[in-house]
Amino acid sequence: MSASSALLTDRYELTMLDAALRDGTAQRHCVFELFARRLSGGRRFGVVGGTGRLLALLRDFRFGDDELRFLRDGKVVSPEAVAYLENYRFTGSISGYREGELYFPGSPILTVEGSFADAVILETLALSVLNHDSAVATAASRMSIAAGDRPLAEMGSRRAGESSAVAAARMAYIAGFGATSNLEAGRQWGIPTMGTAAHSWTLLHDSEEDAFRAQVEALGTDTTLLVDTYDIAKGVETAVRVAGTGLGGVRLDSGDLPTVAASVRAQLDELGATQTRITVTSDLDEYAIAALAASPVDAYGVGTSVVTGSGYPTAGMVYKLVARQGADGGWVSVSKTAEGKGSQGGRKTAFRTLENGVATQELVEVADGFEPLAQPSEYPDARPLQVALVVEGEPVAEYEGPAGVEAAREHHLRVREELPIRALALSRSDPAIPTVYVDADES
Amino acid sequence: MSASSALLTDRYELTMLDAALRDGTAQRHCVFELFARRLSGGRRFGVVGGTGRLLALLRDFRFGDDELRFLRDGKVVSPEAVAYLENYRFTGSISGYREGELYFPGSPILTVEGSFADAVILETLALSVLNHDSAVATAASRMSIAAGDRPLAEMGSRRAGESSAVAAARMAYIAGFGATSNLEAGRQWGIPTMGTAAHSWTLLHDSEEDAFRAQVEALGTDTTLLVDTYDIAKGVETAVRVAGTGLGGVRLDSGDLPTVAASVRAQLDELGATQTRITVTSDLDEYAIAALAASPVDAYGVGTSVVTGSGYPTAGMVYKLVARQGADGGWVSVSKTAEGKGSQGGRKTAFRTLENGVATQELVEVADGFEPLAQPSEYPDARPLQVALVVEGEPVAEYEGPAGVEAAREHHLRVREELPIRALALSRSDPAIPTVYVDADES
Repeated sequence: MSASSALLTDRYELTMLDAALRDGTAQRHCVFELFARRLSGGRRFGVVGGTGRLLALLRDFRFGDDELRFLRDGKVVSPEAVAYLENYRFTGSISGYREGELYFPGSPILTVEGSFADAVILETLALSVLNHDSAVATAASRMSIAAGDRPLAEMGSRRAGESSAVAAARMAYIAGFGATSNLEAGRQWGIPTMGTAAHSWTLLHDSEEDAFRAQVEALGTDTTLLVDTYDIAKGVETAVRVAGTGLGGVRLDSGDLPTVAASVRAQLDELGATQTRITVTSDLDEYAIAALAASPVDAYGVGTSVVTGSGYPTAGMVYKLVARQGADGGWVSVSKTAEGKGSQGGRKTAFRTLENGVATQELVEVADGFEPLAQPSEYPDARPLQVALVVEGEPVAEYEGPAGVEAAREHHLRVREELPIRALALSRSDPAIPTVYVDADES
Repeated sequence: MSASSALLTDRYELTMLDAALRDGTAQRHCVFELFARRLSGGRRFGVVGGTGRLLALLRDFRFGDDELRFLRDGKVVSPEAVAYLENYRFTGSISGYREGELYFPGSPILTVEGSFADAVILETLALSVLNHDSAVATAASRMSIAAGDRPLAEMGSRRAGESSAVAAARMAYIAGFGATSNLEAGRQWGIPTMGTAAHSWTLLHDSEEDAFRAQVEALGTDTTLLVDTYDIAKGVETAVRVAGTGLGGVRLDSGDLPTVAASVRAQLDELGATQTRITVTSDLDEYAIAALAASPVDAYGVGTSVVTGSGYPTAGMVYKLVARQGADGGWVSVSKTAEGKGSQGGRKTAFRTLENGVATQELVEVADGFEPLAQPSEYPDARPLQVALVVEGEPVAEYEGPAGVEAAREHHLRVREELPIRALALSRSDPAIPTVYVDADES
């Protein structure tokens, strides 16, 4: 992979840019919007993910020698377009929802403003990052709600592409998980990491007892021993015999978890290891977590389902031109009108209306022109949802890096509290609050 | 993202390494195996993906200053383990299925041999790459079979994490697609790229006619015009009026495709544009492609479903210790035996038995010891499935880079011909051929 992000782009964006440079439309001022037409899987809310990563990738969105050579030699675009791209950097502005914010159908998650040339070529990169990361964030938030106060760890790296795995670990943490198994997520984003031993550790040794003894010697009695390689009851007995009743925890990675957890808890208590925690890690998703609420489980490790969005691995967001300057310089709202896949043209300003602290509407004001809108006077408690993310080409630093991750997590956990109770149920339903479009002239 | 791949690793692998360095088991010679217990989604065959990428990532699997500092400062492992990792490079060997090869439950897709320290820390990286890439490859191969002779293009980058998108484009090509929209996949892997214009191109202009005229002027009459921004019939009429009857193609991205394709074909023929091709690109998967077989469609563009494995975004492969040296230096076959998630211990050699060129069995010989096995004499037509991928730490170059991609594609299309007819159906079923385990002593 090149250090440049500029070719993480669909070819048609450069083809359009090329043609627009020829006919002069490349310099038309445009507003593109990134939004979701619906919430995948009948979810009741979506969680915005990836914004902080996108800002970092934007900094690397430059066409270097390798990229330009590929475009030139492969005749992807004309020599004139290659010359233009040589000096390209995004000089427009992006406003949008903060990472960790909730979204609903039609929420203007990102608004990208600039010349057509500036904005059209960010389509694929912006969608790749936000679709993937928001899908993970939405699933992770539901799991975090289902887990309540019990700690959750993300351990699904092996079930996701190796770079997406790092992004997924980051999103799970923002959406309420407490730790990840992924070390690169720890290094790069400051996420707490965890992990002790796999079945291979036990199988490596001549006996389970040898394995447990070596682990306790290396990591102390507070470690977590994996007790289901051979016979679980014998494994628990050996674990307590080796580590003593002060053993930190045992992990169960197979079997019918409610049954196994109950019998392991009873056995641990009987052996005097009443403070030893039980972590379960076998094929969990939000439904399995909810079903274990009454079981004596102390912590969950979630793999496949969180990194793959629990059945919905992409959020289905789209990137559409919603307004542009016309030949006369005036603003025109635009949208596709053929049957299917329609959308709402015009630049938008979004608020979440609240009553007694509980969200009631996603209020989206649609402007014909370009001016930012004021707080709607009829909703004094409405919370404005958009912030400046990129100002004249410069990403706003506070949303980037490990500090951006911590801020996004804090923001997510705070705004999740605004959801009405019905939003917390796991079953398929309509969005928890309706999206209401208002013409800006009338608001 | 660091240029090193060494922290694309679950923490427990380093924790085990650390403990194994203390108790001396780190140097035990081990055999790990990467395999799938079952085929996801009732598929009738799986396609191995990612091998060539894994070899490249292995070359970068070194702990540099950034990685070591993180492990040291975060106290992830002991100072002794940090010192060991400073000089780590994989010096073991890997044999396995070629990329593009088919696999079935229990196929020994990768066999990783080396010291425990060598082999244990590749678990996450190997699984991340192969689980993701094989899921995409398997879905893509089914789509390629459903499309028959009609060309298929991959255009799902926006629905996958930005790096996984490049890997997905690569896998779709290996599994039979002809092109991708993803430019980085073109640059890095030599995949043919394609793409002309989005709805934003039409919306940017003051009229659809202006947009079509500018595109034809820039790209010639052989281009493909997107005709469904406003009214499709008017769009087709305008397209032929602007480009003439020599127009290369039209693209349809919405609506009920069988109906729309038929009416657009009739309109094009009536206008004299009998050679103008119709490309469809709206929410296709293998089932939709199959359902369009009788429609006048000339090419397909597939997005979301191929990059997300058409409902199964991960292949569910696991990485297990299957044999190791004991305290006496002798070989021991090992496997987890607790209820659920069991596996077959022992080093394995795999053949695909054929009758009249048609696959009949996945024959897996299980050895107690370590010696490679000869062709089983009772199956003269059996095709050996494993090749050397990494020899004493050195990746075999022929499987890497763009040349490796071309070889994998050729191999896939060739071995797919060996499948029995029933393997080509799209409905859920058992694997197309059974996996038969044979004790090596008896073969």
